[in-house]
Amino acid sequence: MDWKPERNSHLTLQEQIVNWMRSRIERGDWTVGTKIPPQRKLASQLKVNRSTVQQAIEELKADGLLESKVGSGVYVANHSWNALLNKSQPNWKQHIESSIHKPNIHTIQLINEYEQYDDVIRLGTGELSPELLPTKELKQSLQSISLDAKVIGYSSPLGNERLRKILCEYLQKRGIYTFPENILIVSGALQALQLIALGLLEEGSIVFHEDPSYLTSVHPFQSAGMQMISVQRNQHLQETLQSLKKKRQSIFYCIPSLHNPTGINFSVEEKKQLYEVCNALQIPIVEDDVYHELLFDSPTPPIKSFDSSGQVLYIGSVSKTLSPGLRIGWVVGPTQVIQRLADIKMQTDYGSSSFSQEIVAHWLSTELYENHVSWLRHQLKERVAFVEKILEEEFKDIASWNKSAGGFYIWLRFHQPIVNKAFFLKLLNEKVLINPGYIYAANDLHHIRLSYAYASFDELAKGLEILRKISKVSMNRGIEGSE
Amino acid sequence: MDWKPERNSHLTLQEQIVNWMRSRIERGDWTVGTKIPPQRKLASQLKVNRSTVQQAIEELKADGLLESKVGSGVYVANHSWNALLNKSQPNWKQHIESSIHKPNIHTIQLINEYEQYDDVIRLGTGELSPELLPTKELKQSLQSISLDAKVIGYSSPLGNERLRKILCEYLQKRGIYTFPENILIVSGALQALQLIALGLLEEGSIVFHEDPSYLTSVHPFQSAGMQMISVQRNQHLQETLQSLKKKRQSIFYCIPSLHNPTGINFSVEEKKQLYEVCNALQIPIVEDDVYHELLFDSPTPPIKSFDSSGQVLYIGSVSKTLSPGLRIGWVVGPTQVIQRLADIKMQTDYGSSSFSQEIVAHWLSTELYENHVSWLRHQLKERVAFVEKILEEEFKDIASWNKSAGGFYIWLRFHQPIVNKAFFLKLLNEKVLINPGYIYAANDLHHIRLSYAYASFDELAKGLEILRKISKVSMNRGIEGSE
Repeated sequence: MDWKPERNSHLTLQEQIVNWMRSRIERGDWTVGTKIPPQRKLASQLKVNRSTVQQAIEELKADGLLESKVGSGVYVANHSWNALLNKSQPNWKQHIESSIHKPNIHTIQLINEYEQYDDVIRLGTGELSPELLPTKELKQSLQSISLDAKVIGYSSPLGNERLRKILCEYLQKRGIYTFPENILIVSGALQALQLIALGLLEEGSIVFHEDPSYLTSVHPFQSAGMQMISVQRNQHLQETLQSLKKKRQSIFYCIPSLHNPTGINFSVEEKKQLYEVCNALQIPIVEDDVYHELLFDSPTPPIKSFDSSGQVLYIGSVSKTLSPGLRIGWVVGPTQVIQRLADIKMQTDYGSSSFSQEIVAHWLSTELYENHVSWLRHQLKERVAFVEKILEEEFKDIASWNKSAGGFYIWLRFHQPIVNKAFFLKLLNEKVLINPGYIYAANDLHHIRLSYAYASFDELAKGLEILRKISKVSMNRGIEGSE
Repeated sequence: MDWKPERNSHLTLQEQIVNWMRSRIERGDWTVGTKIPPQRKLASQLKVNRSTVQQAIEELKADGLLESKVGSGVYVANHSWNALLNKSQPNWKQHIESSIHKPNIHTIQLINEYEQYDDVIRLGTGELSPELLPTKELKQSLQSISLDAKVIGYSSPLGNERLRKILCEYLQKRGIYTFPENILIVSGALQALQLIALGLLEEGSIVFHEDPSYLTSVHPFQSAGMQMISVQRNQHLQETLQSLKKKRQSIFYCIPSLHNPTGINFSVEEKKQLYEVCNALQIPIVEDDVYHELLFDSPTPPIKSFDSSGQVLYIGSVSKTLSPGLRIGWVVGPTQVIQRLADIKMQTDYGSSSFSQEIVAHWLSTELYENHVSWLRHQLKERVAFVEKILEEEFKDIASWNKSAGGFYIWLRFHQPIVNKAFFLKLLNEKVLINPGYIYAANDLHHIRLSYAYASFDELAKGLEILRKISKVSMNRGIEGSE
């Protein structure tokens, strides 16, 4: 939205806005059913008073081009458009509503939207703060990467071969011995899940996962028609899985290191137990290990390191350590699985950015990456100390939490179930963005995933102050309500 | 596959290979049902005689670890593995076979595989020759791109805002007036099709396309359960579409400029006719225009330029002009459609490489891009002249073709229906890789998509000589067979 009304036009601001909106509708940019941006947002983007926007919208409503839906917003009107403009257009709204892929849940859509605004304090973001990204070093490294014509062409189905060889060496350090042919380069861990959903499971397959889980907040499996079932890892796990699985195909998705959102780490014994239970039932394990490098203490070996059955698909990424903008991750698995996923990736996007792959190869093959990650852990430790001090001083009466063992998150539990969507919106209204627990476990109204990785120290302090204030109000309301 | 047997080991080469294969199986890299690489390929990778590989395989077959399937190859044996190794593993083969996404057709899998070998002459490849990529300039431009922390974080759902603004200006030159909010940055045109399949169509929707069509060679729509129907564009188009569509949702996919594979260009009248027919029936049009810049003569305006109903989704890319390795393309469409596709893209891969987006923004906003594309057209013209001269001299008796109007391809039609899979394999055996017509239209045995964009002049000459030789043999066989 680059357009703004002119101050010295012979038309009033309102007239200009009416004409502009009308033209967006007439040109087919705003088709029937399009929700137009909120008045406040429009006013700020067009640099006019909110009342001017409001009057313009009223005028278009009177013309029948726009219509209000109570509690939802202003939309391009359905009934009158064809008549007014005398043309037909596809029923996009119906196309969207009847199509296959699930939309993001509304809270996540709002998070995605508001993360773009600079004046919002992001207390939930699963992303490194700009000051934690090695911007200068990345820029320098662009001059060191080899960039021959082969690199900038389409890559082979499995991805850049040099990068896969380097990854073999890199993964050996954590006890995973593999070959380049057993690695597929993907555009981040989420794409790996998407490929697994489409390439290894039939409709109605069961995806077992922990509760809560990052997996609940994304839809690669649900949109492909899989059933999501959360299970507890306890001594009855094998019976539970067996009874739920019946004769269906299934996989077990887990994040054994620095679990997202809880931050929990499996012990070696827990990893072995899960491996053996799933092995006995022939259930493949998807081990999401994107936070591996960010454990403050030495990590224990991944489940994949004791896999001798080709049972574990192991996912890694540089998004949490080096730069999410590179969009580079990897999957390690048996040859035939990797070939299958590569075949679908070729049909999906013909491979990941060769430039990004070359940058990652350069970082992993020099000491750049390890030096950076070691510095990064140190920075995250300082951040977590800062946040835990505030929590200790200000939140003990209303919430509890475990000391962070690494990564980005504290799984903050409020004593009362106050974290509902109204709570999320109340904070958003104060320009504080949180990741509420209910996006990771539908019925969870106790938790938020507090991230100390993104916001600046000042923002963290200010954001936590607002969080505390709103929480207190919500708790008091809760108590009043229950009286 | 980095491993090679050692010459001065106390074990024979064969023993080492047997141990290595056994360990790949025991470690679960080669799970039950894995097809092991062909003997010739293994011999070349392990740097041993083919007979050594063969004897190693025979030994493992005798042990029951491998088994031959007639006419298909050697596989990790099913019956004996569990017994031999006393462990269980997931039935990956079944997982793969029952899963949702269609595999690439076998010919395309072979193309993807053999494109990686340097000694293969690629006569069909839809990719620029390494010498046509602006490698040096791209490398230089890496020093000019801005790379602040915001750029290397996750991008906004629609993609890099600066790039979208630049694209608005860029697209104006071809008559498309749009806004940044109406553009989604994607990882190449193929991803755009994937997002449209998942986000705008219900299962069983109809995808109308031309015959032949690039779309037949990829599966984004079929894998999502859509019906593909090819139609002729003639004066009965409206009745045809109406009778086939019935009450179903549908879209019309077309490549009006430098059609892939035929190279045909719609006239302005044909574009208008298609737009009006689809408008009357409310069928959205997907206009794939990735070859736009490569027309030798001035291009006519795209269908999107006269779209005033939000009916056309317009796809572009830099893969055919600047570098496929960047993986950057775009879709232009109505606001609500772009928001929907962006929401699914966020659920699929959290956006395209920020580095790639920044590089493309730099090229499009300076004269770099236009200068390069203008040079490129000139180079392609020289290549087409070279190839058309050979065709004129050597192929007139066996094939016909239209003069190329730009892009990469000549749609070469053999007088006899010789282009079957055996023909493809015979050429592959002589290290010449073609794109046979049957991947673009199932029953086409007359055509190949001849690309003059990839192979060197020497390779083009040599490849065409082999093509001519094999064609002649096939034709004579055909005539003998029919006698």
